[in-house]
Amino acid sequence: MRKAFQEELATINDELIKIAELVTAALEQAVQALESSDTELAQNVIAADAKIDFVQHEVDERSIDVLALEGPVASDLRFVVGTLRMSISLERMGDLARHVAQLVRLRYPADVLPEAIRPTFRELAALDLEIAKDLVELLRSRDLTVANRILTANTRVNELHASVFQQIASEDWQGNAATSVDVALASRYFERFADHGVSVARKVSYLVSGDWEPFKATAP
Amino acid sequence: MRKAFQEELATINDELIKIAELVTAALEQAVQALESSDTELAQNVIAADAKIDFVQHEVDERSIDVLALEGPVASDLRFVVGTLRMSISLERMGDLARHVAQLVRLRYPADVLPEAIRPTFRELAALDLEIAKDLVELLRSRDLTVANRILTANTRVNELHASVFQQIASEDWQGNAATSVDVALASRYFERFADHGVSVARKVSYLVSGDWEPFKATAP
Repeated sequence: MRKAFQEELATINDELIKIAELVTAALEQAVQALESSDTELAQNVIAADAKIDFVQHEVDERSIDVLALEGPVASDLRFVVGTLRMSISLERMGDLARHVAQLVRLRYPADVLPEAIRPTFRELAALDLEIAKDLVELLRSRDLTVANRILTANTRVNELHASVFQQIASEDWQGNAATSVDVALASRYFERFADHGVSVARKVSYLVSGDWEPFKATAP
Repeated sequence: MRKAFQEELATINDELIKIAELVTAALEQAVQALESSDTELAQNVIAADAKIDFVQHEVDERSIDVLALEGPVASDLRFVVGTLRMSISLERMGDLARHVAQLVRLRYPADVLPEAIRPTFRELAALDLEIAKDLVELLRSRDLTVANRILTANTRVNELHASVFQQIASEDWQGNAATSVDVALASRYFERFADHGVSVARKVSYLVSGDWEPFKATAP
């Protein structure tokens, strides 16, 4: 019986990793769609989000079954409850990749991003992708140096997000009102994506160390 | 023993109601701060958000204790797990009220909203307030007609949110890039607020009826 229980917990962790992998693939495609105003790719991202929602539902149901049938306590209980939280964050990250793809489709054949702001978005996208890949690794390895790498990346994401707003407010900015809104929203999607990544990283860190505080203190 | 258990569940529900009340008060003040560019009120909202986070943490810890000590099953288990979900949505609603207040503080002494768009935001704010108050009532009464009222209000919120973007993109729009971004973000905060309200309403509906589908079908 205990063996089956440990196997259930391992399956739950595998499913979380699966969602993180799907989110990574979705973001990768959304970024490429944004870069090249590719509506077909954007459509893929939008369609793939249903799969993420499906796996999230599965992992939630499995977690609730484990709570009902196994009555886990102590660190096992924290893990199962943590799963219910992490799956929400991961699912939201999938939504945010979809939001980026929806912007691409909405503006087509025009580009969402004016040329001048593209370097900032390339860096934002690279950091978010790094965070998504790091989450897969973190869920697999529970190595807290990976969790810290996610925090560091998020700090830079926040700086870039702020710089997008500065660029929009500057005298040199050429975008009209609608373009400016698109750019601001896209930036916010990337910023929220990273933020949810930090939530998952903090949760894993807590599960490993049993302590919120040290990790919280280094959070931006 | 069972009596104590039922009391614990009632306390958890009371704490959820408490958060919903705090969120209602926060939104009320944030809306007033937005209307009158009142930084003192905005500051209150920002400070009060810590209280919401604190009560959320309390209800989560209590829920985890109940899972550990009582091993609830069936509908009691669904309720406790649902609580962990609803508390996240309610806490996010508090964050969104805070985001509105932060916009007010950031732009002071200027107004966030140009005169032309204020009627739309008055309606948005009134609907979000209605949703917040309805959540308090729904958590208290479990009356699904209240849940449906929240859905209907959210549909109108989505229409207004879309109309804000249309106004920004129209020829008549006078706002510069930075103003347009503020208006779009404020609108998104109100839209997300309503969306989280719907998440809670759906969860309560599920707990009462045991069925996602009928409610899902009427969701926008």
